[in-house]
Amino acid sequence: MSTFGTHFRVTTYGESHCLSVGCIVDGCPPGMALTEADIQPQMTRRRPGQSAITTPRNEKDRVEIQSGTEFGITLGTPIGMRVMNENQRKQDYGNQTMDLYPRPSHADWTYLEKYGVKASSGGGRSSARETIAGRVAAGAIAEKYLRQAYGVEIVAFTTSIGNEFLFPPSPTHPTCATNPEYLKLIENITRAKVDEFLPVRCPDEGVTRRMEDLIADYKKKEDSIGGTVTCVVRNCPSGLGEPCFDKLEATLAHAMLSIPATKGFEIGSGFGGCQVPGSVHNDAFIKAPAIPAGTTEKPSVPRPRLTTKTNNSGGIQGGISNGAPIYFTVAFKPPATIGQAQQTATYDTEEGVLEAKGRHDPCVVPRAVPIVEAMAALVIMDAVLAQQSRAAARSLLPPLKGIVPVRETSGV
Amino acid sequence: MSTFGTHFRVTTYGESHCLSVGCIVDGCPPGMALTEADIQPQMTRRRPGQSAITTPRNEKDRVEIQSGTEFGITLGTPIGMRVMNENQRKQDYGNQTMDLYPRPSHADWTYLEKYGVKASSGGGRSSARETIAGRVAAGAIAEKYLRQAYGVEIVAFTTSIGNEFLFPPSPTHPTCATNPEYLKLIENITRAKVDEFLPVRCPDEGVTRRMEDLIADYKKKEDSIGGTVTCVVRNCPSGLGEPCFDKLEATLAHAMLSIPATKGFEIGSGFGGCQVPGSVHNDAFIKAPAIPAGTTEKPSVPRPRLTTKTNNSGGIQGGISNGAPIYFTVAFKPPATIGQAQQTATYDTEEGVLEAKGRHDPCVVPRAVPIVEAMAALVIMDAVLAQQSRAAARSLLPPLKGIVPVRETSGV
Amino acid sequence: MSTFGTHFRVTTYGESHCLSVGCIVDGCPPGMALTEADIQPQMTRRRPGQSAITTPRNEKDRVEIQSGTEFGITLGTPIGMRVMNENQRKQDYGNQTMDLYPRPSHADWTYLEKYGVKASSGGGRSSARETIAGRVAAGAIAEKYLRQAYGVEIVAFTTSIGNEFLFPPSPTHPTCATNPEYLKLIENITRAKVDEFLPVRCPDEGVTRRMEDLIADYKKKEDSIGGTVTCVVRNCPSGLGEPCFDKLEATLAHAMLSIPATKGFEIGSGFGGCQVPGSVHNDAFIKAPAIPAGTTEKPSVPRPRLTTKTNNSGGIQGGISNGAPIYFTVAFKPPATIGQAQQTATYDTEEGVLEAKGRHDPCVVPRAVPIVEAMAALVIMDAVLAQQSRAAARSLLPPLKGIVPVRETSGV
Amino acid sequence: MSTFGTHFRVTTYGESHCLSVGCIVDGCPPGMALTEADIQPQMTRRRPGQSAITTPRNEKDRVEIQSGTEFGITLGTPIGMRVMNENQRKQDYGNQTMDLYPRPSHADWTYLEKYGVKASSGGGRSSARETIAGRVAAGAIAEKYLRQAYGVEIVAFTTSIGNEFLFPPSPTHPTCATNPEYLKLIENITRAKVDEFLPVRCPDEGVTRRMEDLIADYKKKEDSIGGTVTCVVRNCPSGLGEPCFDKLEATLAHAMLSIPATKGFEIGSGFGGCQVPGSVHNDAFIKAPAIPAGTTEKPSVPRPRLTTKTNNSGGIQGGISNGAPIYFTVAFKPPATIGQAQQTATYDTEEGVLEAKGRHDPCVVPRAVPIVEAMAALVIMDAVLAQQSRAAARSLLPPLKGIVPVRETSGV
Repeated sequence: MSTFGTHFRVTTYGESHCLSVGCIVDGCPPGMALTEADIQPQMTRRRPGQSAITTPRNEKDRVEIQSGTEFGITLGTPIGMRVMNENQRKQDYGNQTMDLYPRPSHADWTYLEKYGVKASSGGGRSSARETIAGRVAAGAIAEKYLRQAYGVEIVAFTTSIGNEFLFPPSPTHPTCATNPEYLKLIENITRAKVDEFLPVRCPDEGVTRRMEDLIADYKKKEDSIGGTVTCVVRNCPSGLGEPCFDKLEATLAHAMLSIPATKGFEIGSGFGGCQVPGSVHNDAFIKAPAIPAGTTEKPSVPRPRLTTKTNNSGGIQGGISNGAPIYFTVAFKPPATIGQAQQTATYDTEEGVLEAKGRHDPCVVPRAVPIVEAMAALVIMDAVLAQQSRAAARSLLPPLKGIVPVRETSGV
Repeated sequence: MSTFGTHFRVTTYGESHCLSVGCIVDGCPPGMALTEADIQPQMTRRRPGQSAITTPRNEKDRVEIQSGTEFGITLGTPIGMRVMNENQRKQDYGNQTMDLYPRPSHADWTYLEKYGVKASSGGGRSSARETIAGRVAAGAIAEKYLRQAYGVEIVAFTTSIGNEFLFPPSPTHPTCATNPEYLKLIENITRAKVDEFLPVRCPDEGVTRRMEDLIADYKKKEDSIGGTVTCVVRNCPSGLGEPCFDKLEATLAHAMLSIPATKGFEIGSGFGGCQVPGSVHNDAFIKAPAIPAGTTEKPSVPRPRLTTKTNNSGGIQGGISNGAPIYFTVAFKPPATIGQAQQTATYDTEEGVLEAKGRHDPCVVPRAVPIVEAMAALVIMDAVLAQQSRAAARSLLPPLKGIVPVRETSGV
Repeated sequence: MSTFGTHFRVTTYGESHCLSVGCIVDGCPPGMALTEADIQPQMTRRRPGQSAITTPRNEKDRVEIQSGTEFGITLGTPIGMRVMNENQRKQDYGNQTMDLYPRPSHADWTYLEKYGVKASSGGGRSSARETIAGRVAAGAIAEKYLRQAYGVEIVAFTTSIGNEFLFPPSPTHPTCATNPEYLKLIENITRAKVDEFLPVRCPDEGVTRRMEDLIADYKKKEDSIGGTVTCVVRNCPSGLGEPCFDKLEATLAHAMLSIPATKGFEIGSGFGGCQVPGSVHNDAFIKAPAIPAGTTEKPSVPRPRLTTKTNNSGGIQGGISNGAPIYFTVAFKPPATIGQAQQTATYDTEEGVLEAKGRHDPCVVPRAVPIVEAMAALVIMDAVLAQQSRAAARSLLPPLKGIVPVRETSGV
Repeated sequence: MSTFGTHFRVTTYGESHCLSVGCIVDGCPPGMALTEADIQPQMTRRRPGQSAITTPRNEKDRVEIQSGTEFGITLGTPIGMRVMNENQRKQDYGNQTMDLYPRPSHADWTYLEKYGVKASSGGGRSSARETIAGRVAAGAIAEKYLRQAYGVEIVAFTTSIGNEFLFPPSPTHPTCATNPEYLKLIENITRAKVDEFLPVRCPDEGVTRRMEDLIADYKKKEDSIGGTVTCVVRNCPSGLGEPCFDKLEATLAHAMLSIPATKGFEIGSGFGGCQVPGSVHNDAFIKAPAIPAGTTEKPSVPRPRLTTKTNNSGGIQGGISNGAPIYFTVAFKPPATIGQAQQTATYDTEEGVLEAKGRHDPCVVPRAVPIVEAMAALVIMDAVLAQQSRAAARSLLPPLKGIVPVRETSGV
C-alpha cells in the first residue's frame, strides 16, 4: 500500500504522466502554523535544473494545500496536498523503440509482471516524481513540528560519488564512526552549509569539486554513476523506536530503501563497524553536559542525564534513540536511464539494441539529499507521536516503587 | 508494535526472563501440513551451544503449537506458538554492579528512558531470545508454504567476520555483484552445504577456518567481533513488492535491521555498486532459459519470459521482484556484552568500572544465519499473499485491450 | 485515522469549507475499465436539490480522477480523486450568533474539545460533505469491480421515516426477517425501482407518499425527523469475513456507524430477532437451486452447494457470508440543524438562544441511500480481496486428506 | 486478522478444542500494577455454570500472564496471556450425526466455505470460548488503566430477554433515551448492583424474575431465546473518537458486532430515536456542574466546561465523546444450538434430521454482560491513547491566536 507511518500517516498517489501527484497527511498535530511557504523550500531543493550537471526539465513543483488548515493553522484533520504535472513531455519518452523494450534496470518489466497493464511510461509509479508530494511535502510538515517542539535538526549531504569519498575508509577507520573529524562534522553541519556546495552538496571544497568533475565526465560519456548520502538527526528525543520489529533503525532503513535507486543503508558504524572489536565499539556512558547556550534545542524539553563518550551506535541502542545524534548513510546506484546504446531484449524476448532518448540525470545523489531528509523526518515524527502517547499514558498512573517518574526520563 | 507483516502477520511477546516467549501467526493459508517437526530444525540451528565458540547456555527452545492446526493440518486460523523459558539463570546476570550500571551499547539505558520501568534484566525485550518464537518459528511456517507453493529456497551464510571476507572488495569488483564466482555461489549454495562449515557457516574451507580462529582470538581476549551474513532467495515469483513505500528491498531492509545487533543492509550491488557506472550496472534483458531438470522449482508455476544477463539489481527492480535470485547482505556489530572491564557511568551519572559476568557469544554472526533466513521468509510470504490477492482479483475481470492475461505475467 | 479498509483502502481528506475534498483509493485491481462516468451517477444520486423536500444548495460534485488510470483502464496504482468545493457560501453559516454557540447535537463542541482549534464552520470534518469523494466515489469503484467479477448487486432504500414504516413491527413478525413479503422485496428490489420513488426512495406508493408528507410537515415546523435505510447485497460470494474481530457484520456495522447522523445498525433479524425462539430463528440448510436464467450473477463463479430455507441470519453466519442475500438496516437520527430557536449555552457557558440560519435538510434519510450502498461496497470489496488472497494461497498447496479443493468451496 | 485496536492492540488465538486459547496485548502503558488477580474476576463472571439456567460445563478459565510484567508491574512490552483448554469433552460434541450435518445458523458451513478444512468442532474459531482470553482478559487490563487514570466506570446489564423488557418501548418513549428513569439508571448502576440480580443480571427484581422464568421455559422446551445488553461508560474523557471512518460509535459498533451471536447495536437514542423530532432530540448545552463529592472520578483530570441537558446523543457527538455517559445496547440472537430435532441438509446436500447433543445455554445474554464490558474497555482504551498522543503533541507547540490551550480542553 502507498502509505507510510502509523501515527503520522502519509498516503500518496500519482504516476509520471497523470494529471497530478499528491498525498494526504493524517495525524498532524492541531494548532501548528502551516502554509505552503513551509513546504515549498524543500520541494525546490529537490527540483531538477539547479545546475549544468542535473537534468534541465523545468518542473515547477508548486504544492497546493487542499484541506486540513484554516487561516494558516492546522486543524488536526487530514492535510490534502497536490502538485500539478505541468511539464509532462510525453513525446520525449514515448517512441517506437521504447514501446518495444523494457528499459534495463528500470521498473518497466517488473511493473508489467506485477500489474499486467502496460502504462505509457513504463513503471510510472516508480518514477522519482511521485516522491515530490508524498515524501518531500509531508516530510516538510513533520520537520516543522519536530523543530518547533524539540528543536530537531535534520541535515543530509553527499558523502561519496563513484569512488570519490568525503571520508575514504581506511585501516585505522574502517568506519567513519570512529573518526573524530567525522563526528565533528555530524555535530555541526547545517543545511545552509550544505547548499554552499551546490550542485553536489558535499561539504568540502576539494572533494565536491572532484565529484562535480566526475559526474560531468559520466555525463559526457552518456553514462551514469552512483554515490552515498549521509544524514544526521540532532536533538532527537530519547526513547523513540519500538522493540522487536519496529526498532528505530529498522523503520529508518525501510524509509530509505523505499527511495527509488537506493541499494543500501547503514546506521552508526555500519558495515565498517563489523571490523571494530566490541571493546572499541561499545559506547561508554558519561554524564550529559549542560545544554550549551545558543543551541536550537528547546530548553523546555528535558534531555537524558547520560550520554555516550563515543557514538558508534549512531544514536540508537536496542532499537531506541538515546538522545545522541542519529546518523546513517544511504547508497544510490547509478541511474538506469543512460544515453548509450544497450544490447537487451524486447518484451517479446527478441534481442536488439535500445537507445534511450530524453534528458536524464547522470547522478541522482545531490537531488536525493532533501528526499533523505524528508523520509528521516517522517520516521522520527511517527516515532515521536508513538512515544508521546506512551509517556502521556504513563503520566496519569499512580506512582509505584521501581518506576521512574515521566519527568525524569525521556525528552518526549 | 510487536507485529510484522500485513497479510502474514506475526505478533510476538516475551522478554529474557519471563515465563515463556511466543507468537501468534495470523494469515497462514489453510490446508497445509504443519507440525512442530517443520519448525524445530531452524529453532535448533539458532541454538547456542553448538560449538566451543558459542555460548554454552543450554536453552532447549522447544516450540509447542497451541492452536491453528488440527491433525497436523493448518485450519487457516491464527497459529499460537510458545517456547518455555526453561533455563533462566537470573543469578548469572543479576549482581550488584550490573544493577548500578547500564551496560554500554546495550539497551538498558534506552529501555529505561522509553518505559521508565527498570526490568531486572535491563532491556529484556531487546534480547536475542525473543527472536526465537517470533521470528524463527514464524519464518519456518512461511518458508514451508513458499517451498511447497513455489519451490522457493532461502539460504543464508557468513560472508565476513571482522576483516576476514569470503569475497574481499577489490578495485575490479568494488561490489561482489559483478563477480561471476559470487553469482555462481548465490545460485547454488544450499543450507546443507552451509552447515558443513559449522560453527562459522562460511562456505569456504580456508576462510571459515580463519574466521573461526579470529573469533576464538576475540573470545580469549574477552572481547567481541562483528561480521556479515549474506542471504539468497531463489525461485521467488516475480511481481512481489509494492510501489512507493513498501518496495521489496524496503521491507527486507526493515526486517533485517529489526534483528538485534544489525547495523547495515545492502541489496544486490549495494554500497559497492555506487562505484560502478550505469553502463555496467544495468542488467540487460535476455530470454529466460527453460527450467532445468532436477530443479526444486514448481513446474506448475509460470516463470517470467525474460530474465537478466547480470544481476546487479539483486532480483528486484523498481521495488518489485523480477524472478532472478534476490540476495542481500546484513551487517552485525560486535556483541556489546564483553568480559573486559569497561570505564563507564552508573544510572546516577557516577563514573566507574563495569565488569560483565555471564557467558556470552564473542560473535553472533553464525547463529544469526537462521534468523536472517526467517525474516526473509516472512517478508517474501507477506509479499506473495499481497500479490496473489492482486492477481486473483485481476483474473476475474473481463479481458481488455492493452492488458496482459494473468497467466502470461507473474508466477504468483 | 481517515482510512477505511485493509486490502481496498480508502483515505479521505476535506472539510466543509476547504479548497477541495478528495480521496485516494489504494488496492483497486489493475486492468479494469474505469472513468469518471462510472463514478458520477452515485455522486449525483447523493446530491442535494433533487426535490422540494431536500436542501436547495446546488453542489455540483463533479469528481476528477487524478491518477491510477490510463486510457480508461486502472493501472493497479493508487487512484487519486478530487471534488472542488465550488459553492461554499460561508456567509450562510457564519454569523455572530453561531460563532458564540456550539450547535446542539452537532460536532462543534466535541471538535473543539478534541483539537483545540475553532474552525470557521465548527466540526467541519464531520460534515456530510466529506462523504462525497471518500465514500461514494470510492464505493462506486468497489461496486464496479464486484459487479464485473461476481455480479454483486447492492441496493438500499428507505424503510422508515419517523413512525411511518414500510414493514411495521408486529406481534407476528417482531422482525421483518420472518416476513415472506419482506424477503421477496429483498430478493428483487433494484436501484432503478428505488429511484422511481423519489424523493423519499421508499419502494411502496402509499408509504412513500405518507413519508413525503411527514417530512414536508417537519420542514414547515422548522424541525427535523429521522428514519431508517435498509440495504441488501445479492450474489455476494460465500466465505467473506474474518473470524473473531473482523466478522463481516462487525465491519459492516463499523462502516455504517461511521456515516454521519447514524444511531443504530442491525443485521438480518436484528433487534426484533431477540424475541424469536431459536427453533424458528435457525436457518435450516437446503440444497441450493440451480441459478435461474436471466440473472446478473456470473455463471463462471461457483456458488455454494447449500443455501438456507429462511434467512434470519441475514446472509452471514459465524461472521462469514454464506452466499444468501446480506441485508441490514441503519438508523438515522433527525438532523441537528433546525430553524427553530434553541435554548442552550455559549462556548463560554453563558445561557442563551440560538437560531440557526442557512438551508438544511429536514431529513437526511433519502440522500443517505447511496452512501449506505457505497459503504457496503467498500466492506464487501475489502473482504473479497482478503478471501481471494486466502483461496489463491490455498490453491497452490498439494492436496491433503480432509481438505476440500478450492474449486468446490466458496465463490471467491 | 484476529487483531483489535491500533494503539492498544489485542491479538488472539485459539479454537474450541486446541491446546490453549490466549492473546497478546500490545500497547499497555508501562508502570501499572498488574497481576492475574486484576483479570480473573471478569473471567469468572463470564464463566458458565453460575446457576441452573446456564450450561453446567465447568471451565476453569484460569489466566496466566506469560510476559510483559515483572514483580507485578507492567513493563510496557507485550503482555502474553494464556488459558488452558482444560475440559474439552470432544466426545460430547463429536458424533456420527454432527459429522454429517452443518449445524443450522452455526458457523460450520461458512467455515468450510471459507477455509476448505473441516475442523472437528465445526467453526471452532467462532466459538464463544475464544472470547475469554482475547476479549475479557485484555479488556480487564484496559479497564484497570482507564479506572486508574480517569476514574472510568463501565457497567453492562441485561435489558431484555425475548419480549420481556426492562424499559418497554412506548408511544411516549419510542426510545429509552428520552425516559428520565432510564437516564437515572444509566448514571448510577454499578457492577456490584448488577450481580445482585444473578443469574439474569437485569437490575429490577420483578423483571429479572420474569426473564429467569422465560429462559427456564425455553430450556424446558429444548429451545433458546435472545435478548439485549445495555452498557454505560461513565467518566469517559471528552475528545475520543476519530473523524470520518473511526467515529467512536463506529468502533463501538465494530467491537460489539464482533461478539458471537450479536445482531444489532444502537447508541444513545438508537432506532427509537428515528421517531423523535430534532427539536426534542437535540441535546442543549448547559454549564457543567461541579464534580460531586464521593465520586470515583479523578479530580486531577479536567472535565469539559459544558455538558448537555439531555443525552440523546449517548455521550458522542460528531463521532467524538463529549464527556457525558456513553451508553449503547447490543442485540443477541437466540443460541443456534438447541436440543430439538431440526429438519435440515447434510454437507452433501441430502435432506435429514439433526438432533444436537451436549449441554448448551438456552440464552447467552447474562454471560455476555462481561464480554460487552470488555469490548467497550478495549474501544475506549484505544481511543484514549490516540487522543493522549494528539494532546501531548499539541502541548509542545508554541501558543497561537485562535487555539485553545490543551489544559482547557479535553480531559485527556
